Amino acid sequence: MVRIDGRQTNDLRDVTLDMHFTKHPEGSVLISMGDTKVICNASLEDRVPPFLRGKGKGWITAEYAMLPRATAERTIRESSKGKVTGRTMEIQRLIGRALRTVVDLNKMGEKTIWIDCDVIQADGGTRTAAITGAFVAMCLAFEKAMREERMTEWPVTDFLAAISVGIDETKQVLLDLCYAEDSTADVDMNVVMTGSGALVEVQGTGEEAVFSRAELNAMLDVAEKGIQELVNLQKEKLGQTSDRIQDTKGVGADGN
Amino acid sequence: MVRIDGRQTNDLRDVTLDMHFTKHPEGSVLISMGDTKVICNASLEDRVPPFLRGKGKGWITAEYAMLPRATAERTIRESSKGKVTGRTMEIQRLIGRALRTVVDLNKMGEKTIWIDCDVIQADGGTRTAAITGAFVAMCLAFEKAMREERMTEWPVTDFLAAISVGIDETKQVLLDLCYAEDSTADVDMNVVMTGSGALVEVQGTGEEAVFSRAELNAMLDVAEKGIQELVNLQKEKLGQTSDRIQDTKGVGADGN
Amino acid sequence: MVRIDGRQTNDLRDVTLDMHFTKHPEGSVLISMGDTKVICNASLEDRVPPFLRGKGKGWITAEYAMLPRATAERTIRESSKGKVTGRTMEIQRLIGRALRTVVDLNKMGEKTIWIDCDVIQADGGTRTAAITGAFVAMCLAFEKAMREERMTEWPVTDFLAAISVGIDETKQVLLDLCYAEDSTADVDMNVVMTGSGALVEVQGTGEEAVFSRAELNAMLDVAEKGIQELVNLQKEKLGQTSDRIQDTKGVGADGN
Amino acid sequence: MVRIDGRQTNDLRDVTLDMHFTKHPEGSVLISMGDTKVICNASLEDRVPPFLRGKGKGWITAEYAMLPRATAERTIRESSKGKVTGRTMEIQRLIGRALRTVVDLNKMGEKTIWIDCDVIQADGGTRTAAITGAFVAMCLAFEKAMREERMTEWPVTDFLAAISVGIDETKQVLLDLCYAEDSTADVDMNVVMTGSGALVEVQGTGEEAVFSRAELNAMLDVAEKGIQELVNLQKEKLGQTSDRIQDTKGVGADGN
Amino acid sequence: MVRIDGRQTNDLRDVTLDMHFTKHPEGSVLISMGDTKVICNASLEDRVPPFLRGKGKGWITAEYAMLPRATAERTIRESSKGKVTGRTMEIQRLIGRALRTVVDLNKMGEKTIWIDCDVIQADGGTRTAAITGAFVAMCLAFEKAMREERMTEWPVTDFLAAISVGIDETKQVLLDLCYAEDSTADVDMNVVMTGSGALVEVQGTGEEAVFSRAELNAMLDVAEKGIQELVNLQKEKLGQTSDRIQDTKGVGADGN
Amino acid sequence: MVRIDGRQTNDLRDVTLDMHFTKHPEGSVLISMGDTKVICNASLEDRVPPFLRGKGKGWITAEYAMLPRATAERTIRESSKGKVTGRTMEIQRLIGRALRTVVDLNKMGEKTIWIDCDVIQADGGTRTAAITGAFVAMCLAFEKAMREERMTEWPVTDFLAAISVGIDETKQVLLDLCYAEDSTADVDMNVVMTGSGALVEVQGTGEEAVFSRAELNAMLDVAEKGIQELVNLQKEKLGQTSDRIQDTKGVGADGN
Repeated sequence: MVRIDGRQTNDLRDVTLDMHFTKHPEGSVLISMGDTKVICNASLEDRVPPFLRGKGKGWITAEYAMLPRATAERTIRESSKGKVTGRTMEIQRLIGRALRTVVDLNKMGEKTIWIDCDVIQADGGTRTAAITGAFVAMCLAFEKAMREERMTEWPVTDFLAAISVGIDETKQVLLDLCYAEDSTADVDMNVVMTGSGALVEVQGTGEEAVFSRAELNAMLDVAEKGIQELVNLQKEKLGQTSDRIQDTKGVGADGN
Repeated sequence: MVRIDGRQTNDLRDVTLDMHFTKHPEGSVLISMGDTKVICNASLEDRVPPFLRGKGKGWITAEYAMLPRATAERTIRESSKGKVTGRTMEIQRLIGRALRTVVDLNKMGEKTIWIDCDVIQADGGTRTAAITGAFVAMCLAFEKAMREERMTEWPVTDFLAAISVGIDETKQVLLDLCYAEDSTADVDMNVVMTGSGALVEVQGTGEEAVFSRAELNAMLDVAEKGIQELVNLQKEKLGQTSDRIQDTKGVGADGN
Repeated sequence: MVRIDGRQTNDLRDVTLDMHFTKHPEGSVLISMGDTKVICNASLEDRVPPFLRGKGKGWITAEYAMLPRATAERTIRESSKGKVTGRTMEIQRLIGRALRTVVDLNKMGEKTIWIDCDVIQADGGTRTAAITGAFVAMCLAFEKAMREERMTEWPVTDFLAAISVGIDETKQVLLDLCYAEDSTADVDMNVVMTGSGALVEVQGTGEEAVFSRAELNAMLDVAEKGIQELVNLQKEKLGQTSDRIQDTKGVGADGN
Repeated sequence: MVRIDGRQTNDLRDVTLDMHFTKHPEGSVLISMGDTKVICNASLEDRVPPFLRGKGKGWITAEYAMLPRATAERTIRESSKGKVTGRTMEIQRLIGRALRTVVDLNKMGEKTIWIDCDVIQADGGTRTAAITGAFVAMCLAFEKAMREERMTEWPVTDFLAAISVGIDETKQVLLDLCYAEDSTADVDMNVVMTGSGALVEVQGTGEEAVFSRAELNAMLDVAEKGIQELVNLQKEKLGQTSDRIQDTKGVGADGN
Repeated sequence: MVRIDGRQTNDLRDVTLDMHFTKHPEGSVLISMGDTKVICNASLEDRVPPFLRGKGKGWITAEYAMLPRATAERTIRESSKGKVTGRTMEIQRLIGRALRTVVDLNKMGEKTIWIDCDVIQADGGTRTAAITGAFVAMCLAFEKAMREERMTEWPVTDFLAAISVGIDETKQVLLDLCYAEDSTADVDMNVVMTGSGALVEVQGTGEEAVFSRAELNAMLDVAEKGIQELVNLQKEKLGQTSDRIQDTKGVGADGN
Repeated sequence: MVRIDGRQTNDLRDVTLDMHFTKHPEGSVLISMGDTKVICNASLEDRVPPFLRGKGKGWITAEYAMLPRATAERTIRESSKGKVTGRTMEIQRLIGRALRTVVDLNKMGEKTIWIDCDVIQADGGTRTAAITGAFVAMCLAFEKAMREERMTEWPVTDFLAAISVGIDETKQVLLDLCYAEDSTADVDMNVVMTGSGALVEVQGTGEEAVFSRAELNAMLDVAEKGIQELVNLQKEKLGQTSDRIQDTKGVGADGN
């Protein structure tokens, strides 16, 4: 069966990584997955949050937002409401946590990477696109810091990407759901994995429906395929920076 | 190997459900899982949020909070800070979503169940205890509504319980982590399942470490055992109300 | 004339003090006055607010909240509203001020006692129950600090309890109003007194009615009787800690 | 003994009521008590808060603020902080409650009186000055409404004034404390009374000290004298409006 | 004398208008003026703010924000701070006011245009770029509404563009200041004009310096030249939509 | 043609400066321009905001507010809303910026002047009255600081005043618009000038209409006349302090 946009069930949408998208950030990437477009900026600061001061290690934190008209209907700007929604908080916590898994914070020194993911156009899968793009922006920032000798040790221990998978009403497992698919899916799952194929985060939810262990496994199989393709694109785009990651891999990021 | 509190790896802590804990709510339960104690209150209101008005169906929403000194160190009261943390938002969204999976909202009429989960003592696993206790409080509220003829159809289609599982530093899979175990675990996973054994929500996270597909499956096996024990306790405590759920099961909750 | 719950006009409701109610706080008490139930926790911190730093003395501050469903109708959680109501602020200021009257802050060193009063079930008189219970929780915290040698001098100079009194529509003076009485009373007064019978705070309000000097005195007479009974219960429950207070009494708390 | 500003213990400071102080409000008064100066404006609106809609009665509510430099040290503007302090909330609740005692809300129709008390210079006793001035501003607003036939029945049933009393370190009872006296007093009490001498509100507080029943009575005696003088000034300034109040007195304000 | 980026004193930077930049908004434009890049989205809603309801006319309102890393140093996200800065408020009020000048609100019917200007890269002149780009996005939205027959009358009465001018430390008048020039300029002025050359808004500010009437006139001369060039670009990009504006011009926008 | 209040087109309203209006501030002035009345207080603090610490120079900042009933209709208090409107922010930024233009911040040392402008009665032109009055309050504060030797160098380099001008529906240029004129004017402009006649700020806005260069110049001519009259009044009222300003003039305030 073919999907509403002509894809096979286990196809990704077209993915592009537009490197060095804006000029000010230490790392800047525009990731497009089909019509979902997210600006991922990484900023490197020479200080850490209070709970880490004096411990000699770094931190990675993330913020996520959507432009009001990234969506079909205009949504109210969170700065106008004066507070951030629960959905936004969940996503920014997820992005930060995922990135910290593949970084040896002890090698950063007392520095913070701020990741800003701003969705300029949404068509499903914004949080997973944000993770995949943020990983690349973070690597660009670290690469720049190494080049400028603000850092002396390479801290990234593995590649990292994320994808959504789901089960539609006909019980088909779909990879990389667009918005139309996402809003009618019975089960929705976000998976974050390393380049080595280890799981970092699994969030499966069936609000209208439940799912079996077999369905969980089928979704994970498809997710793994999609993530491997995303990691391949990251490797290609990061060029020599990829070699640094390969060399560090296996050393183990256990610094949190 | 025996755990720090003497349990076997796949043992739950002592669980109690103190029914009708306070007098005002339509449903009120104090759940204790070891030293974790959560007051779960269910309130039934005769109206629905704006997005559902006029559609003839109900809604279930949840709020979660900890008393400032539920924890070893006093935490600042969220009302004093003037905002709710990301962690709190994640948890309350999870509780509401999970409960809605086993309720046929069309049978509720235009009513809202407000679930309030207030942790008075925390020792790990507060969000899963909250779900397990909230399910019982919600059933008590529906039972009262049926008795008083505020509702005419029984809307709960299955039992629902939740538990945490994790992998410790020696790679052992542990069921129902207490705080000391949780804070040293490599991987932490929360699982929500129905009485029939279907998955509702799977959230596995490895901040300091990653995990394999085999480990994911081992954790799910143990979680399933624990949830079955919790559901058995729910059945026993709910008495005749359990029969209503059994009778409704299989009819399918597809009303969201 | 007998009251709606069968009490005589100058009877207290049944009062219990459930000592060491939760495990984390330095002092923890659940006070019940009839159906009014308040968890009173005392936390001891090794620092003081900015305006007291470097002065060698301590501070006592209080926070008060009600669970959303402590009341017959669910009230909105103050953390969700993002602000604390005027009523809450008035009560927490009152609790802190009252407790500071019977503590020699100079003997505390630069420490703060945080009092958290959380009403889990409300049936009138929550603020006075909170004061009576908070005094006991505070004493438990100081006792623990003395035992662990975090403090060297006993700072509590007298017992402290509070009660509500009122005048009903038939001009009867009532002690310890339950909610049904409170909502129909013409005059409502909260009285805080020491174990020695000195007044600490008198707040008499007649929103729908006014009151005479004679009525004020009649209310104070009844309040004094009720407070003496509460202090007797505090003495019994505090056991040996009571002796410390007796020994310190007369020395004078003039440290603010 | 003579006081720091030359007064006898039971002397008021110089009191003036500057009628029709600003041009827009329905009632506007600048009250000066010594160096304490408060602009009291009363606005009459043709609607009531939601909880009173459709009940055919009125409401009176108050707001209180200080200019940042009303005090010796500049205080931060509450609008800049984004929230109102507990002290402000206590005061504005007190002002509204006190005024409602002498108004038959049923005679107002569905109207609201907004009282705005803005302290432009503070030297102790701002909340009691606010009540005494607000009463006059409210009467001016009602007078105007009667004249313009927006209202048909006179709703004010008695005069209302307030004063502070205290006990200094030498145990002297002082009337109408200025700031220097207030900040060194052992006991501080605010008393609100009607023109007929009935008590409306008694708030006595001894933060650093306690007080006896005898001292309470001595303070009330002095307060009564002061309030009578304030009421006499109100009568004189209100002229013919005073007659309306006299005529309504005894009819009873029981409309809340 | 040549400027730091090689321009003559009265040269604009390179300007581009990237039409239909994102897919969801009714009108979407990315404007670039040198390194300043602003996404301008126009959303058309079928309702008006409360103060306009039932009057049969429309409204235009604007919001403005910068991505955290649009600037050389990362700025805190306004949604995280929970409030919008004064600078942001000034700018969004300016954008809305300027656009309303060239629209006959009576011809819109009860509709609102929401303008969202999001700066993704900042290098001076973001507010004037936002106005110039927002005008085009608004025209695209109106064009679409006409095409889809949501509107029947063309409401835009003239072109509108804005530019910054300034006086540098050597008293030279500069057109279209980049950030480096802006931060060292003595005087900074923003000018908004119509396509017909009428002034809409003039905001001249000399924080470190003052300016004479002659200097004001010199700045206006240069601004006029720059705005004419911007309007020419708008005309070219809007194609046939430009004709609608030409035809409506002279009819007069007097609908506010 | 004569205006609604009998003035000629280029007449100011009656202006008074009530010096030393309240007792606590270092400088305090009540400015009245017709029925517009603004309390302008200047507070001198011995510290500067974080961004200026350690630089040896001072800062001037302003806050502006209206009493709720300064206007014909009561407006909601910004402290109750919990946030400051865009209009308020624009005005307070303008006041601070304008005053800093005529002060040599280097001569202040690390001190801050807080300007508080509180409108107690509004009838148009509150922001310009606030600037004219604030300048005088600031001079009083500096004069006091010189007298008390908290400062050693006189920092004010020129006089400063502000006025509104506008163009009415008959194309007449009007000076110092009252509220009734302001709300029907086609164009509204606020002009801030120094005593020497240099422009500090020009803000011309035509929301309903546009304006030509010729009209701009006509408005500036009239504004200049009005400001000169205001400066003459400032000189007279400041007496000997005026001499200090005259002596400093020409030295140049280039300290920001």
